[in-house]
Amino acid sequence: MTRSELVAQIKAKKSFLCVGLDTDITKIPEHLLAEEDPIYTFNKAIIDATEDLCVAYKPNIAFYESYGIKGWQSLQKTWEALPKDCFSIADAKRGDIGNTSKMYATAFFDEKVSGLGFDSITIAPYMGNDSVTPFLEFENKWAIVLALTSNQGSKDFQNFENKENTQLFEYVIDKVNTWGSPENIMYVVGATRGEAFLKIREHAPEHFLLVPGVGAQGGSLQDVCQYGMNKDCGLLVNSTRGIIYASKGKDFAEKAREEAQKLQQEMEQELIKAGII
Amino acid sequence: MTRSELVAQIKAKKSFLCVGLDTDITKIPEHLLAEEDPIYTFNKAIIDATEDLCVAYKPNIAFYESYGIKGWQSLQKTWEALPKDCFSIADAKRGDIGNTSKMYATAFFDEKVSGLGFDSITIAPYMGNDSVTPFLEFENKWAIVLALTSNQGSKDFQNFENKENTQLFEYVIDKVNTWGSPENIMYVVGATRGEAFLKIREHAPEHFLLVPGVGAQGGSLQDVCQYGMNKDCGLLVNSTRGIIYASKGKDFAEKAREEAQKLQQEMEQELIKAGII
Repeated sequence: MTRSELVAQIKAKKSFLCVGLDTDITKIPEHLLAEEDPIYTFNKAIIDATEDLCVAYKPNIAFYESYGIKGWQSLQKTWEALPKDCFSIADAKRGDIGNTSKMYATAFFDEKVSGLGFDSITIAPYMGNDSVTPFLEFENKWAIVLALTSNQGSKDFQNFENKENTQLFEYVIDKVNTWGSPENIMYVVGATRGEAFLKIREHAPEHFLLVPGVGAQGGSLQDVCQYGMNKDCGLLVNSTRGIIYASKGKDFAEKAREEAQKLQQEMEQELIKAGII
Repeated sequence: MTRSELVAQIKAKKSFLCVGLDTDITKIPEHLLAEEDPIYTFNKAIIDATEDLCVAYKPNIAFYESYGIKGWQSLQKTWEALPKDCFSIADAKRGDIGNTSKMYATAFFDEKVSGLGFDSITIAPYMGNDSVTPFLEFENKWAIVLALTSNQGSKDFQNFENKENTQLFEYVIDKVNTWGSPENIMYVVGATRGEAFLKIREHAPEHFLLVPGVGAQGGSLQDVCQYGMNKDCGLLVNSTRGIIYASKGKDFAEKAREEAQKLQQEMEQELIKAGII
C-alpha cells in the first residue's frame, strides 16, 4: 500500500486505528476452544466486527510462532482474512545481516514464496544499515523501525546519550531517514511518553508513526495527537487488549466493535480538529 | 544444556565449532531438489557428516520462515534431527516487550507448546530489560544477546558513544550482565574485528561468545582465540558457507566434513595452546 492510499483510507474511514491481533489462546472466549483453529476463528470474528472502523491490522508474530507449525497456519489464514483496503503490519521486530534480512523480507512480503504478503514489518535497528535496507527493496512495502518504544526496558538503551546530548532513538531516526523516505519508512513510538513526540517530530516531521501503548499501557490519545499529528495525520495508533479482549463471552466481537468505535469516534474528532477531514 | 555440559563437550570433541544451518534452496545441490523436503534432507546429511566435529548447530530462522508453513516444517524436522549432545541455537534475533518476548521464548524453548526446544536463542537488545529477561526464566536455556556484530551496518549504532567514551555495545554488555549470569547469557561478537575482543573481555571476561564471521566474512580464527579465549574456552565459533556450501555436487556432505575437520583441527591446536585440553 502506498502512502497516499493509506492517507485516503484514513480520510475515508475517519480513523487512524490499528487493531493489534496478539491473539492468546488463554484469553479468548472459551466457547471458541472447540473450533478447529480457535485463534483464526477469533481473529476472523474480530476483523469482521472492526474492519470499517480501523485502517490497519497488526498480528504480533510471536503469538503465532509460539504454537509452531500450527501457529504459522493460523497466521497464514489470518493474513488471508485481512481486508485488502486495510494496511497490514507484521509485528515481528526482525533485523539481521543483509542476506538474512532479505530472507525475512521474503517471509513477510513475498506472497509467492512464503504465502504472506504483508504491507509492512516492524524492524529492530541494532544491526544497522544492511539489517533494514533489504526490506526497502520491495515496492510499496514498508519498514517500521523501532525508535522509542513504550515498554519499561525502553529506557535501558534508547535513551543512551552521546556527547552532543543526542539520544540513541534520535540518532536512529536521523540515520534511518537517510536509507529511505516517508514513503517506505515509519517509526515505532510509544504513546506512554506524550511529550516525547515533540522531539520525535523534530527528527521525523513527515513520517508516519506506529503508536502502541494507548489504553492498556496507559498512553493518552489526546496527547499523542497534540504532539504527534502532522498534516497527513502521520499516526497509526494501535490498540490491542482494550479491543480484542473487551469481553470473554459470546458477545466478544460485538464488544470489540464497541471499543473500536469509541476510539474511532475520538480519532474522528482529532482529525476534524486538525483540519485533515 | 548447562555451561559445564557445554565445556565438557568442547573438551571431549576438541572443538568449539558451531555449524550454521542457513540453508538456502538456491544453493544446495540440485539432485536434492527432487526430495520431498530438500532443506531438511540437506540439513540431515550435513548434521550426520559433522556431528562429531562440532559442539553446536545454529539454524538461521529467517531461511526457514521465508518458506512460510513449509519452511517451519523443515525447521521442525531439522530441530528433531539435531544430536542431543550438541548445543542448539535458534538464530532468530528476537526481542519485544515482556509479554511478547515470553511468547518468543515459548516458540523456541518450550517443546510441549511449540514443538521446538532449542538450548538458546539470539536476541536483539534494543528494547531493553523486559525484552531479554523472559528468555532467562527457562532453566538451562540461554539468551545470546547481540553485542558487536560482524556486518557492515554494525558500526551504525553499536559504536554510538556516550560522554564517558563508552560505546553502545559495551554499555549493552554491562547492563545485560546484571540481568543474568555467564550460566545463561552469551554475547554475539563478530570475528571481523579481532582486537575488539580485548574490549569485550574487559566487560565480559567469563561469558561465552558466539562468534560469526570466520571464513566467508573474513575473520581470523587465530585472532579470535588470541584475544577472545578464556579459561573455559568461552567461544563458540560459527562457520556456515565455508562448510555447508563447500560443494554443490553429490559429495556435498563429504566436502562439508572436510571443511569442518580443518576447522576442528585448528581449534584443537588453539585449545592445546591455551592449556584447556
